[in-house]
Amino acid sequence: MVIIIKQNAKEERIRDLIQWIEAQDLRTHVSTGDYSTIIGVIGDTSKLDEGLVSGLDIVEGVKRVSEPFKSANRKFHPLDSIIQVGQEHVKVGHGNFVMIAGPCSVESEEQIISVAKSVKASGATMLRGGAFKPRTSPYDFQGLKADGIELLLEAKRETGLPIVTEIMNANHLPLFEDVDVIQVGARNMQNFELLKELGKTQKPILIKRGLANTIKELLMSAEYIMASGNENIILCERGIRTFETATRNTLDLSAVTVLHELTHLPVIVDPSHATGVARYVKPMAMAAAACGADGLIIEVHNDPPRALCDGAQSLRPEQFEDVVKAVYAIRAAAQEV
Amino acid sequence: MVIIIKQNAKEERIRDLIQWIEAQDLRTHVSTGDYSTIIGVIGDTSKLDEGLVSGLDIVEGVKRVSEPFKSANRKFHPLDSIIQVGQEHVKVGHGNFVMIAGPCSVESEEQIISVAKSVKASGATMLRGGAFKPRTSPYDFQGLKADGIELLLEAKRETGLPIVTEIMNANHLPLFEDVDVIQVGARNMQNFELLKELGKTQKPILIKRGLANTIKELLMSAEYIMASGNENIILCERGIRTFETATRNTLDLSAVTVLHELTHLPVIVDPSHATGVARYVKPMAMAAAACGADGLIIEVHNDPPRALCDGAQSLRPEQFEDVVKAVYAIRAAAQEV
Amino acid sequence: MVIIIKQNAKEERIRDLIQWIEAQDLRTHVSTGDYSTIIGVIGDTSKLDEGLVSGLDIVEGVKRVSEPFKSANRKFHPLDSIIQVGQEHVKVGHGNFVMIAGPCSVESEEQIISVAKSVKASGATMLRGGAFKPRTSPYDFQGLKADGIELLLEAKRETGLPIVTEIMNANHLPLFEDVDVIQVGARNMQNFELLKELGKTQKPILIKRGLANTIKELLMSAEYIMASGNENIILCERGIRTFETATRNTLDLSAVTVLHELTHLPVIVDPSHATGVARYVKPMAMAAAACGADGLIIEVHNDPPRALCDGAQSLRPEQFEDVVKAVYAIRAAAQEV
Amino acid sequence: MVIIIKQNAKEERIRDLIQWIEAQDLRTHVSTGDYSTIIGVIGDTSKLDEGLVSGLDIVEGVKRVSEPFKSANRKFHPLDSIIQVGQEHVKVGHGNFVMIAGPCSVESEEQIISVAKSVKASGATMLRGGAFKPRTSPYDFQGLKADGIELLLEAKRETGLPIVTEIMNANHLPLFEDVDVIQVGARNMQNFELLKELGKTQKPILIKRGLANTIKELLMSAEYIMASGNENIILCERGIRTFETATRNTLDLSAVTVLHELTHLPVIVDPSHATGVARYVKPMAMAAAACGADGLIIEVHNDPPRALCDGAQSLRPEQFEDVVKAVYAIRAAAQEV
Repeated sequence: MVIIIKQNAKEERIRDLIQWIEAQDLRTHVSTGDYSTIIGVIGDTSKLDEGLVSGLDIVEGVKRVSEPFKSANRKFHPLDSIIQVGQEHVKVGHGNFVMIAGPCSVESEEQIISVAKSVKASGATMLRGGAFKPRTSPYDFQGLKADGIELLLEAKRETGLPIVTEIMNANHLPLFEDVDVIQVGARNMQNFELLKELGKTQKPILIKRGLANTIKELLMSAEYIMASGNENIILCERGIRTFETATRNTLDLSAVTVLHELTHLPVIVDPSHATGVARYVKPMAMAAAACGADGLIIEVHNDPPRALCDGAQSLRPEQFEDVVKAVYAIRAAAQEV
Repeated sequence: MVIIIKQNAKEERIRDLIQWIEAQDLRTHVSTGDYSTIIGVIGDTSKLDEGLVSGLDIVEGVKRVSEPFKSANRKFHPLDSIIQVGQEHVKVGHGNFVMIAGPCSVESEEQIISVAKSVKASGATMLRGGAFKPRTSPYDFQGLKADGIELLLEAKRETGLPIVTEIMNANHLPLFEDVDVIQVGARNMQNFELLKELGKTQKPILIKRGLANTIKELLMSAEYIMASGNENIILCERGIRTFETATRNTLDLSAVTVLHELTHLPVIVDPSHATGVARYVKPMAMAAAACGADGLIIEVHNDPPRALCDGAQSLRPEQFEDVVKAVYAIRAAAQEV
Repeated sequence: MVIIIKQNAKEERIRDLIQWIEAQDLRTHVSTGDYSTIIGVIGDTSKLDEGLVSGLDIVEGVKRVSEPFKSANRKFHPLDSIIQVGQEHVKVGHGNFVMIAGPCSVESEEQIISVAKSVKASGATMLRGGAFKPRTSPYDFQGLKADGIELLLEAKRETGLPIVTEIMNANHLPLFEDVDVIQVGARNMQNFELLKELGKTQKPILIKRGLANTIKELLMSAEYIMASGNENIILCERGIRTFETATRNTLDLSAVTVLHELTHLPVIVDPSHATGVARYVKPMAMAAAACGADGLIIEVHNDPPRALCDGAQSLRPEQFEDVVKAVYAIRAAAQEV
Repeated sequence: MVIIIKQNAKEERIRDLIQWIEAQDLRTHVSTGDYSTIIGVIGDTSKLDEGLVSGLDIVEGVKRVSEPFKSANRKFHPLDSIIQVGQEHVKVGHGNFVMIAGPCSVESEEQIISVAKSVKASGATMLRGGAFKPRTSPYDFQGLKADGIELLLEAKRETGLPIVTEIMNANHLPLFEDVDVIQVGARNMQNFELLKELGKTQKPILIKRGLANTIKELLMSAEYIMASGNENIILCERGIRTFETATRNTLDLSAVTVLHELTHLPVIVDPSHATGVARYVKPMAMAAAACGADGLIIEVHNDPPRALCDGAQSLRPEQFEDVVKAVYAIRAAAQEV
């Protein structure tokens, strides 16, 4: 960490600061220029509270040299991680691409099994479906909860597809025993109590970027899980909140590239939630594949009587099949270059 | 809710949509213009999923007429709510101004009692202090937890100040039995599982606006608690995340005015976290008082040996006293006009 | 336009509003529901000031049915526009992909001719280079101005590549007589005086999205040029300003898809300015090609003695060649699916 | 400027960088830590291109020590500037508060003179009115232009109020000869060509912060005018673009405080454009006065027959009078503390 001291700071105050830093088992290296004094802090600065230091009235600015995340840091783990999903064959990362599909919410046995069969036939390698649903309004449908997980497990038995579903409360963990991948939703990305509990399991965790969270904060949340003992993390970019309203959120595909540089963990993309519009899912899925995403998570429903839903955020199975083909064609081209 | 249908939509698809809406116990009123058909939906539209409807390919746009929040809505509860804090005298709302002060974290018995006495002498009417601390990094200090709450209760016994402290996990609720106001932090504003549990208590809840959350979403989160049975809610504006980096977040004081229009719940302001800089706290506290905030929550520490901290986010007691005087002078002037 | 009236609005005020609207040669269609009255406005509502109407105290909300842009609107011009660049062969749009490359600033004859030859050899179909440079600081290099344009024209004579360069002042238009495409930078996207003057020429105009401008505002700016008589517009997505700091701006690739839906104008992408980091240019260029961009504009310099610049925003020619290959491979794959 | 070098950077590349810096008449001071090398750059670093340096692949990060603005910098000009408006008595800054009021657009002689008289009677010290109007749509009313300025001058003769009106094109400068303060709108904040021309006059310039511009960029734009020779600048905070839609923009009142710290120039606030809602203007005007703004600019119209407009962004004269009283009461209270 580099601390830049203001020009007019009193010597005594600077000495106080240096003493305080050194009292935390860190070394300092001071250099003095025309306009300012600079304190280089040497040692494990992840313990130093950057906000506290930068708020001091003698401090002009602070710049971290080393990132505050370790387990997730590619510097200390240069090779891509490969996350093993379920008992057998599904892997994510280092060239292993995962195609996750399924409905927003599990609604009934008939629905989830029908969708599961459809998406498997179209090329999905994992099934998604919401059992516990985080809804902005307390009056909206909150999911089938435990029954929803039961139905997902039945769909898994029928199709062999591993399943991923969202957790909202660490107390529900026993219900997730046979779930293959546990999802942390965007709104819970900084629910640190939940992250710590998930760190005590060995389940793969799919963690979505929060709507107002930076890439580094996403990595710090992964770090929470890893610091508690679970290194099986899949990161997910799903759009951030900006002033643009043409799409529900703004999909930040640069994040895929930046994350691949900073971390060894696999990164997947959710074009359904990011755009909120079914007809934008295919081009964004293709773009994600082109820039190196390790997988996609896409909403697919299978509900012919509710014909009106065509065009909403979810794709119909035949549309999903079209996306799968396009994504694999792009991947093939991207890998050759 | 008003649904605007695209010009080229097929009659049959429009009929499907109308049938689907009416199947949900709602009535419709259709009018046809030159360029589009408009469906007015009449009845309790809070059940209708706006995202789903607006995603339909035959739909040009959707506009809610009635807000989706009810218990928090001033339309149905025109008079200001007054939240009673502790056993006796402290009230918030409808002209009752609350001045909450205290350290970011409870660190020791000596510290918290010393700060409590200081801020009481300076005019604070409630004590804040973090026992469970949400930290971006798993390697940062996570608070004294249960011991921190014990120390806060001791400070309360010594000074008579009611206390407010943050909860991060509903399982910790038994520890909060003697806490006067339970705080939900910005990162947990949409931790709906936590909100529901807090709704089962009768404790006043201080809920902070999330960094990327709209004013309406803050009200929907209040609604979660109220729908579960607890109407004792204090809202808190504490800055939103924008592109500006001169302050930690951007304090949105218009939110105070907008919230007072939309809801009967009291609204307080946290200038310490919003700006992240101690010397900006006083002018922002004065501005908050001028535009009608029902209270302030301000970080104050009392730690002369760590002289280096002057200028950080926290005020020293004598600075806090200066803020209190300024705030009351502004309030007096604002009430006369 | 649909105007939703508040529940408690007085009859008389509603009548006033209807009269005011009809006085503007528009017809109205009023329907009354349980909770609100809705006024449908029929006719050419592009003249109605949406901000004015939505600010009225009897108005709950306003929703436009028809977009306020016409010439740029795909509804009235379903086929893709093809923009002809220079005298002969370069076209943009409807399957014609343009690859624009060149240095940020024109620095010298040697530099620009050398880069022009290199990028042509690598597959560029147009040359870019800044002569007039918009710089945040008045103390930064402001470009070679008229001399820079002369040097670009020389590079064009040497290589046959059409050239694109930015204009900052309509008074400079005479200098742009032999320039093939005139660029409007992000900061001038809403310099309406400049847009109107450009509308009086028949030059192709490359207009970049402003950092805080919505997709619709970009289309309104194109509409300014088109309404003045020039329909040769190329739109450019170059990143928007968000809270994320890992990249200079946040590249909004969904905008490519949304724009293709709303307008017939071609849309290109600038991954160099969006990310600000050379090593992110290739993956973002590939992603842009995958989601259907009609071209790319990429910074390339050719300055071996300043070896230190490796890694900055600009690519070296050999890196650009690698990007070109990747982009064409992705395009080929995308077109097959 | 402090440049932090990556851990694995080659010695030779670091030497190249140091040589390049020193070739620009700057000195360097290198210090080497466990994790990184740090180059302190000493001298006038405003010439160094921060973006270029931070993009280098051997560079971990860059931190400016001295701000890149000089004429506007309080460090070099500690006393508040006072801007003299018109021939006589109106001053802005250092305790001189300016109350600017008037209609959005000048519409007719009757209108502007009537409003001018009303606002003067209510306490306005300057008259605003748009003659050249920047409108998002080319189909919206673009102002009365030269005739509008004539009408403003007539209102000035009638009332003695100095006038402020917006310029959109430096070619129009001759029309502004008798205008007292020339306004640069938010959309033109980085129209550097316009800023340079305004720098050649000695007119007071009221420059509004752009919707997506940081506080530092606003100061750099002021610097453009000052570097060209005109030091009579009034800064204006008028809301930034965020995700919140309850107000048109998000008024950033912290900017008033931050600007007062960084610069000696006066700072006024525009609550009308920031919120877009007349009933939010009073509380935000009071808040602005409480945190030390040097003035306000408020939209007032006077148009009884268009009764429908009540509630839009503009205040009626009697509402404005109420705001003036409230603002002065707050100012009086704020100055005593």
